[in-house]
This record gives sequence, structure tokens and C-alpha cells, in this order.
Amino acid sequence: MALTDTEFAYRQLAARLASAMATGALGPGERLPSVRALAAREKVSIATVVAAYRHLENQRLVEARPKSGYYARPRPSRLKEPEIGRAGRDHPEPVGVNRLVLEILEASRDPGVVALAAACPSPDLFPASRLQRLVSSRARRRPASLSSYQMVAGAPALQHQIARRAFDHGCDLDPDALVITNGCMEALNLALRAVTKPGDVVALESPTYFGILQIVESLGLKALELPTSPRTGLSLDALEFATRRPGVVAALVVMPNFSNPLGSLMPDAAKRRMVTLMAERGIPVVEDDIYGDLHFEARRPKPAKAFDKAGGVMLVSSFTKTVAPGLRVGWIAPGRWLPQVSMLKLISTVSTVTLGQEVIAEFLATGGYDRHLRRLRGAFRDQVARMSQAIGQYFPPDTRVTRPRGGFVLWVELPESVDAQRLFHLAAERGVSLAPGPIFSPSGRYSHHLRISCGYPWSERIEGAVRAVGELVRKLQHEDRASP
Amino acid sequence: MALTDTEFAYRQLAARLASAMATGALGPGERLPSVRALAAREKVSIATVVAAYRHLENQRLVEARPKSGYYARPRPSRLKEPEIGRAGRDHPEPVGVNRLVLEILEASRDPGVVALAAACPSPDLFPASRLQRLVSSRARRRPASLSSYQMVAGAPALQHQIARRAFDHGCDLDPDALVITNGCMEALNLALRAVTKPGDVVALESPTYFGILQIVESLGLKALELPTSPRTGLSLDALEFATRRPGVVAALVVMPNFSNPLGSLMPDAAKRRMVTLMAERGIPVVEDDIYGDLHFEARRPKPAKAFDKAGGVMLVSSFTKTVAPGLRVGWIAPGRWLPQVSMLKLISTVSTVTLGQEVIAEFLATGGYDRHLRRLRGAFRDQVARMSQAIGQYFPPDTRVTRPRGGFVLWVELPESVDAQRLFHLAAERGVSLAPGPIFSPSGRYSHHLRISCGYPWSERIEGAVRAVGELVRKLQHEDRASP
Repeated sequence: MALTDTEFAYRQLAARLASAMATGALGPGERLPSVRALAAREKVSIATVVAAYRHLENQRLVEARPKSGYYARPRPSRLKEPEIGRAGRDHPEPVGVNRLVLEILEASRDPGVVALAAACPSPDLFPASRLQRLVSSRARRRPASLSSYQMVAGAPALQHQIARRAFDHGCDLDPDALVITNGCMEALNLALRAVTKPGDVVALESPTYFGILQIVESLGLKALELPTSPRTGLSLDALEFATRRPGVVAALVVMPNFSNPLGSLMPDAAKRRMVTLMAERGIPVVEDDIYGDLHFEARRPKPAKAFDKAGGVMLVSSFTKTVAPGLRVGWIAPGRWLPQVSMLKLISTVSTVTLGQEVIAEFLATGGYDRHLRRLRGAFRDQVARMSQAIGQYFPPDTRVTRPRGGFVLWVELPESVDAQRLFHLAAERGVSLAPGPIFSPSGRYSHHLRISCGYPWSERIEGAVRAVGELVRKLQHEDRASP
Repeated sequence: MALTDTEFAYRQLAARLASAMATGALGPGERLPSVRALAAREKVSIATVVAAYRHLENQRLVEARPKSGYYARPRPSRLKEPEIGRAGRDHPEPVGVNRLVLEILEASRDPGVVALAAACPSPDLFPASRLQRLVSSRARRRPASLSSYQMVAGAPALQHQIARRAFDHGCDLDPDALVITNGCMEALNLALRAVTKPGDVVALESPTYFGILQIVESLGLKALELPTSPRTGLSLDALEFATRRPGVVAALVVMPNFSNPLGSLMPDAAKRRMVTLMAERGIPVVEDDIYGDLHFEARRPKPAKAFDKAGGVMLVSSFTKTVAPGLRVGWIAPGRWLPQVSMLKLISTVSTVTLGQEVIAEFLATGGYDRHLRRLRGAFRDQVARMSQAIGQYFPPDTRVTRPRGGFVLWVELPESVDAQRLFHLAAERGVSLAPGPIFSPSGRYSHHLRISCGYPWSERIEGAVRAVGELVRKLQHEDRASP
């Protein structure tokens, strides 16, 4: 695609500035030249410099401080990104991660532990007092919502808000075709139960969120792992190949926006191709967009559902990562499986608590959500950057770490000789909980990988934990070299 | 068992009074003789008369009005009780009630409809303003419960209250071995998923709650219907016979206290025998006690779990029928399947909304629940009696109706020629929703049966609906006779 002259000019300038920051010429926290000074120096227009700075801001390389100018941001990491998963066994696997996940959750429960395992944001990042006031006023105005059975599909006010927001980022949803659920996990369960039966094969990203693997396991399904790039997500070539024979893959589960644990973001063109391919082959797509609102760049990415013409994508999401984990409000836009999903919702839990739905609807309607989200995204972006830097500082130099463009988790590839499960146990003894790689794979891949959550504001305590884990990693690496 | 003289005297007196009321000698609403007058007339002690009146009161035949004396209560019905289900096909059935249930729920949704189908109490019977205040004060005092992930098992305060109340009616539960769920339906799902796999056979009462049949269907299980007496519940002889061969029945689902739809109450001895038999044969029992708190007699019946020594009974219940349908708070005491149920809860919905749990815990702890329950039980008892009388008045005389000792539904056996599904459609056209018999059976039995909910206070509108249904029944009965 040809660039206009203006586009070319600002991109060229931006690339030079980025390069200066990468080499350290422009150090983290340093003030960049003023717009006027740079325009004069580089002999370009003011507009070109402004465009270049905006571009760098979108890429999280610089930040604007009001009445002060632009500053170089802390670099994400000096470490390389992990590579796309090497091809492994490409046959479907029965899943068996439950025991390990329980062990990890139990290790995380102790309040004395530095919890880097669970993808749970700090409660301090959520608008508790605002929500509390909404809860009180809702309960006062609508006590009937406590004392009557509620609609299976959910509160119309929330259905409307969800559809309106989706419309704003380019995805048309029918509010009457949404089902509100007890968080994203129920939505994922309903989606998979609607389109699979025990013994079926589900294709999914590798690595993927262990909760999805647990659902797959509990429903008696088999998982087919597809290679996934830390940058651009699911490999479409692998998907194309894995689904070439009809009737083999019953459904695809995918997180195109900031997948957990990789944080990868599928380009729009790839989303479109994926949706079209699956529609052609008659394979339902379950799209988990729970991290979609937590983008670091300016624009909220579209869900793949935005490219769905035939109702073949079941979009699931939740407000548990963005507003209120304790209210357990998620949702599903089940496309052409609306009747099946509605019936399964009725059979599973009848309906979702209306009070929580109405509180979130009001929070969304009054604009409180958008303001909150801006702050939250900034916090996660910084926390991810700080964590990434600390890993670069304390872990061995051949460690690799993702550069997510949203969400709040990092995926770390340790030196190959380091056993992540052993590391998990040693770190737990030192009061740090970690999520070892094998729980993100039904076949136990990722033996030397970790997911690290950046859900909490940076603190000396967290830095100390990362330092301690780094020391353990070096020790394990060394032990291995020392052994015969 | 030999009676003492005193017991013999008061029982004889009570039997005579009951007989007088049955024949109409003592009409509904009539004042009974004063204790003193009756003692003099019958030449018995004051204590004997008081004991006789208390006995009749427990049997719901008389009621005491403060400072006024004892009155004959409205007789439940002039109609006979239905008989225990005739033996039908005794092989397991795949279940297929979903479509019919949806049709019925859709017909019930219209606010212009007199809803006799769904077992939902009137919202006016619930303590909405008290709950609303508790919600506000809880949200104010514990906003953190909104903004953090909560314990999978539930709020300790509610676990404690549930265990304490169970202890009060003779059932020892470990608070730490309870899992709070999104209503009773989630609890039933978790229980069945913990002990069965697709294709397994589940033994259950016939007729039984259609929601249980929907769960059975959605999990790919088969249902084996066991004959059930409207009075004493599940036939133990049938259970004994059906489970004689090991490995055939994977689980038993049973509602010993006020089963839905029959309202039957299993005697304690039968509960004990059932639990012992299932323990001997290694068959897990899922006990649904959702109506247990809604007893019409003085004493709260024990759940069968009270006789469980080996952790083989999974007790499930909920506060949706007694406190707040809209809060969706249920629970399960999963016995020795606690690890499996906890894991499935995590995978299904992660946790239950804490706010609702804490509100109910406080309502229970402060004694509000007991006062509320007394009023609620009285309301249901009266509503059931009024409905029963109206059915006696407006339906053909060979109609049969249950005499439940708790809960708020009636099971009606119409003349054999009346097709309940046809009646359901005709009544829907006249603005009355009914639950036709076949949805209570996986094999479509109960073609001429209905479940009628008595969840709403008696009104002319409801009476008009019952009269209209009675006319339809007579018409259908007549049509059948007229046809060749």
C-alpha cells in the first residue's frame, strides 16, 4: 500500500526517534525535543512532528505530559520476544491440567504470598466506592429485582449498553441476541456445550488460558493445539491445515485480542480471514474477548465477530477484568446458537443476578466506565512495562518475554534447561506464586515457560519477588549445567 | 409401638374431632369448643384436650387464633389423592422435555397471564425492603467484595449459617465442606457432573421436577423413573429392585421433603433405609431439599443427609424459594465429592456473587429469616388449601389432587380422557398458564395430569382462572365421550 508524502515523512521521523530510544540515545524518562524545535531541526512541518509524536504515543514509546511535552517511556524490555510455538504433536489431546491448576490456586491463596500467578487485577484498581453507591441506589429503587425470578437472557439495560459499546468499536450486536452470564467462564461453558458433544475435538491457541483447557477437559472434549505467534496470534496456516478435512474439528476457541497468556493481537485482516475460513468449513468459532477493552494503543481493536456475516462466531466477554470481579457479570453473543445457549443458561443457572447487571449498565451508561477504563489501561500498561524491565534486569539474558499490546500478563520463555514446575515449587517456598507453562497446554508443552501477571501496581515487594525468582532461575540453569 | 394411656386419650379425641371436620359436622372456619368446655363434656383432663388440639394443629386441621380459641381450617379438598404411579416402562429413557418446557415458559412470560405453571412465589411474599437495606449496608461496609475475586466455595458467614440451621433440624454439616452456588440448579448440575458421565443412568422419582430432567438431558444421561407415592415419596421397593444389579444406576436424584411436583414427604425411617441401601450399593444420592423449609406442620423435616454416615449423600438447596429468587443463592453439601464439586464450580462459574451471600447470611443470623419463614409457610399453607378447594369446586368430581404437607404446588390427576397438553394450549388461549404432566416425565407419562402452583395469594383473578380451567377440563372430557 502506497503512503502519501505526509505519511512517509512522519513515519520516517517516528522511526528515527524510535531507533534512538531503542539504542538508549534517548533514555527512558528523557524529554524529547519540543515540536517547534524538532520541526526546525528536521526541516519538516509542525504537523509532521505532531503526527510522528502521536504515532510513537500510540506505540507506547513516548508519553505526553500536559504542559510539559513528550517523554521517552520506559522501554518494555531489553529481552527478545518468544518465538511462535514449535510444531509439536499435532494430534488432539485429552486434557489433564486440573490437578496442577488446583495446586497453583492453593499456593496463591495465602495473603502473605506475592501473587504473580493469577490474572487478577489489584482490587484497588476498581471503582469500588462508585459501584457501592450504584448498588445501594439500585437496590433502593428496584427492590423487586431481589424478590422475583429474572429473565434468563439478562437485564435489558445491560444488553443495550453492551450492544452500544460494541457498535462503537465496529461490531454490530443485537441486544436481544445477548445472554448475560455468571462471568466469562459460564459464557465459555455455554458456548462449547452448545456446539460440541463429548469426544469432539476443539482447536485452540497454544499456549492458551488454562481455564479453557479445564472446560474442555470437564466436558470430555479433546484439544488440538495450534501454533500461535506472540505478536499476531493464531497461525492461520495451521488452522487451514488442521481443518482441511471436514468433521474433524468441532469448534475453534480463540482470543484474537490480547490472548492469554501471549498477549498477541490478531490483525484485522487475519480476523477476517479466520472468520471466513471457519464459515466456509462450517466450524463454529468461540471468541473470548475478555481483554479487548484493555488495549494499550489508542484504538480499541475489533473483535473477530465484527467480520462475522453468518452468525458463526460466538463472542464471549465479561466485566470481571475491567469493573468488578466480585459481581461476576459476563456475556455471550451466541450468533446462530442463541436458542441452544439460552436453553443451556436456563438449565445451568437459570439467570444472572439482576442487581449486578443493572449496576454495571448504569456505570456504562453514565460514562463512568470510559473514564475508569482510561485510568485502568494506563495502569496496566505501566505495570506491564515495569515488570518487563525487571525481568530484563533480574533474569538470565537468554530469557525471552512477550511485548503485549494489551491486557496485563507476560509470557516468559526461560533458558531451556530451567524446569518451570520445579521453579514454581521453589518460588512458592519463597512466598511467590507463579503460573508454570505446562498448565497452558493440554500436552504439557512449555516446560521452561511462565506466565507472570502484572495486575498489581509496581512495588518494592513485587520487585523483590521478581529478583528472587530471577535468582532461582539462574540457580536452576546453573544446576543443570553442573549436573552430568 | 404401645401408646401410653395419655397418648391414647388425646389421639382418640383428636381422631373424633378430625372425623367431625371431615364429614362437615365441624365446618371450615367454625370455632371448636373451648378447652375447658370440651374437657368437661368429654370427661378428660385439660391436658388431654390441649394435646389433642395441638395434634390437630400440627396436622393443619385446626388453627389457633390468639385470645380466641381453635378454629377448623379450610379442608384441603373433597377430592381423592392421586395414586402412586402405575408401573410403566421400567427401562432408562433418554430425556426430551426441553422443547415443551420452553413453550411453557414462553407462555408464562406474558404479565397478562395468570401464571399457575411456574413454581415461583409472588414477589410480595419476600422481604424486599429488608433485603434492600441489607444490600446497601453490606455494599457500604464491604465494597472490596465487589472488586476482588472471591473464594470458590463461598462466603464463610453464609457457610456457617447454613451449617448452624442444618444442625438445628438434626443434620450435621461441616461449614467448610459447603459450596455456595448460583441457585439450586447450579448445585444440581455440579452434583450430577461430579458422579456421572454421559450415557450413565440416573434413577429418579416419577413424576419429578422438569428442571432435573433438563439437566439429565443436557448432560447426556438417561433417566430411570421410579414409582413415587404422593404421600410417602419414592418407592423403596422399586429402588431396591432397580439397583439390585451393580453398575446399572450411576446416581439417585430424590426430593424426600415435599417433592416437586407431588409434595410427598418421606418418613424418617424411609430416608434412613434409602441412604443405607444406596451406601451399601455404592450409589451416590443427590438430595434436593429446596422445599424443606416450607413445611406446613410444626417440625422441620430432616433431610435424608441427616442419616448419611459415609458422605454418600450430596445435599443441595437454595434460598430462591424462601428469601430472594433474584439473588440466586443456592448451596451444596457434596459429601465425599467435595473436591470434584469444588473443581467443577471453579470451572463452571468461578464463584458466586459474595454480596448476595453476605446479605442472606445476615438475614439468617439476625433471626429475620425465622420470622419471615413463619409468615411464608402460613401463606403457602393457606394458598395451597384455597387452590385445593377451588379445584374441588370447579373440576369434575373424579379429579384427584395431592395433599402436600409442604411447598406450594399441587399435582392434579384429571379424568383419564383429558389430554393435559391440549388443556395447556386451550388454557393459554384464555390467559392461564399450566404445567402439563408430560414435562415431569422423561417418557411422557402423566398425559392427564397437571402441576398447579399456589405461589400467589388467593384472589378473584386466580379463582376465575381455576374456574375457567375447570370448564375446559369438563369440555375436553365431554368431547372425548362424544367422539366415537
